Amino acid sequence: MRAVTSVAREPATLTDIARAAGVSAPTVSKVLNGRADVAAATRERVEALLLEYGYRRRGLHAAPLLDLVFHELESAWAMEVIRGAEQVAHAEGLSLVLSQSAGRITPGQSWLDGVLARRSAGVLLVLSKLGPAQRAQLAARDIPFAVIDPVGDLDPDVPAVGATNWQGGLAATRHLIELGHRRIGVIAGPEHMLCSRARVDGYRAALETAGLRFDPALVRSGPFHDEAGSECGRQLLRLADRPTAVFAGNDLQALGVYRAARELGLRIPEDLSVVGFDDLPAARWVGPALTTVRQPLTEMAATAARIVLGLAAGRDRVSAATRVELATELIVRSSTAAPCRPGD
Amino acid sequence: MRAVTSVAREPATLTDIARAAGVSAPTVSKVLNGRADVAAATRERVEALLLEYGYRRRGLHAAPLLDLVFHELESAWAMEVIRGAEQVAHAEGLSLVLSQSAGRITPGQSWLDGVLARRSAGVLLVLSKLGPAQRAQLAARDIPFAVIDPVGDLDPDVPAVGATNWQGGLAATRHLIELGHRRIGVIAGPEHMLCSRARVDGYRAALETAGLRFDPALVRSGPFHDEAGSECGRQLLRLADRPTAVFAGNDLQALGVYRAARELGLRIPEDLSVVGFDDLPAARWVGPALTTVRQPLTEMAATAARIVLGLAAGRDRVSAATRVELATELIVRSSTAAPCRPGD
Repeated sequence: MRAVTSVAREPATLTDIARAAGVSAPTVSKVLNGRADVAAATRERVEALLLEYGYRRRGLHAAPLLDLVFHELESAWAMEVIRGAEQVAHAEGLSLVLSQSAGRITPGQSWLDGVLARRSAGVLLVLSKLGPAQRAQLAARDIPFAVIDPVGDLDPDVPAVGATNWQGGLAATRHLIELGHRRIGVIAGPEHMLCSRARVDGYRAALETAGLRFDPALVRSGPFHDEAGSECGRQLLRLADRPTAVFAGNDLQALGVYRAARELGLRIPEDLSVVGFDDLPAARWVGPALTTVRQPLTEMAATAARIVLGLAAGRDRVSAATRVELATELIVRSSTAAPCRPGD
Repeated sequence: MRAVTSVAREPATLTDIARAAGVSAPTVSKVLNGRADVAAATRERVEALLLEYGYRRRGLHAAPLLDLVFHELESAWAMEVIRGAEQVAHAEGLSLVLSQSAGRITPGQSWLDGVLARRSAGVLLVLSKLGPAQRAQLAARDIPFAVIDPVGDLDPDVPAVGATNWQGGLAATRHLIELGHRRIGVIAGPEHMLCSRARVDGYRAALETAGLRFDPALVRSGPFHDEAGSECGRQLLRLADRPTAVFAGNDLQALGVYRAARELGLRIPEDLSVVGFDDLPAARWVGPALTTVRQPLTEMAATAARIVLGLAAGRDRVSAATRVELATELIVRSSTAAPCRPGD
């Protein structure tokens, strides 16, 4: 497929330029990459031909760098994403540049200046987004970007890769209902993140399709960290009519609920069932092993990297296929069981 | 401090070059950075003056990139290292380029070509090392490097940051002896890694200074993963005269020992005490929370990054101060207790 920005005339290749300049293709490549080891006269001749032929500095001739930007570099969650992006970058001969936007949803201008200066082949944003001016600056340099796990509404032309959060929330809650739980607490992630809303909406849909009432008293919300899980877990487990199961917003929150349960002398799964979300490596290690909704983080990052590199090389264009949600999957382990008091 | 490679003559500054060429300092900077938006004649004049003045393309004028290379990008361990390197890089206005050497101790030539092409300001190697030819290539371009957690013997002029592994092994084992344990198993990491040897030697020193015999039957060895921990744990716990405590090579191995204990119906810490090494975030989450030797991974990476950037800027030179081991610390949590059968 031709790049969005290409015109009817067949674009000149690097070999065309090399032939016209009477130099080798690697020499043209050196000029394109700003290397110092080219004679000034040669560089001048090549630069003139690049202009004349309207050669676009993109795709393979961008720096072999792929930018990956996190909102925060906190947990094993980020490691899974890094691994997926690194695998694809490595396979395509690119190196991965890693940044964090210091907790801000929109990375700063100094970060963007860096991307432009290093002529990155593309940008992957994790749980963050770009402002309109930043998007225009990337577009002007033909640097494509994609969003992994988008936090909010996106313009329709922004490529994005997420997971089926709503279905994950539905599957987790149905599993608890099928075990016999009736009072099921839920811990939501941050309210501004659409993935949090989708998970809680899936929880609510599971309750209501099973004929159970959605009770706002059983809903808590907090950041995706274990501390928030402990705090929300304590609040839920201290309720007079406490839930027999908790669906946590992610695995770290679920591990916080484990701690709250231990403090209150409640056994998992005998006194309390817990379901997480993500399936981080730690979910297998904790005792009891955590039932959780697997989010294919590595595959999500790899898919987003492939989309961006396809756009950078001019092989693909932004379309419906660059807006995907990968499937989540319920992984049943040992933290869920029938409640001691069935029908509770 | 002056750079090792500087000569007696005061080196020319970017401003000196700009004045001589009759252009602005930013224009000289553009030429140094291979930017295309400089007239060919200007670039030629500036390049000639840079040569004439012997201007060194280093420090601030290298690409604002710092390379971080892992042997493998597997675990939360890597995340701690990444965070430390990213903090320092970000504070100094550099972006972090992340690579993995696909399980090889020495990264490939294509990786090195990438570092040279992107004129990285410096290189941090984690659990890996460079060949002599690779070192010469970096030296020729004035790209300094440092090793984090060195795997083997290093030449004396290689900057390196590690942790006090021997002291950590000593402290972990003394803690178990003080609790009353006499049969203490140990799981070593890979044998070619010096950090593994140092931890086991610390274990042995603690036993022998307490008048206890070192028993080779209680030593197992395997990769730093949870699977190896389970396998070695099973072997130790199935011994006729099984140990009442295990000092694992790292936290992941310790969590594997947890699994082996669960399989065999042994309670931690009542039937088995377990100590890990690293203090990954998961050590706090698991039940019971893991007693472990804290290795300051984030600080180690940050220290190595500061060393490399100091060398790159010509502020520092390789010396005894660029060969450091940061302190480890025993963190006592709930996975260790007196043995059920004291004196066992």
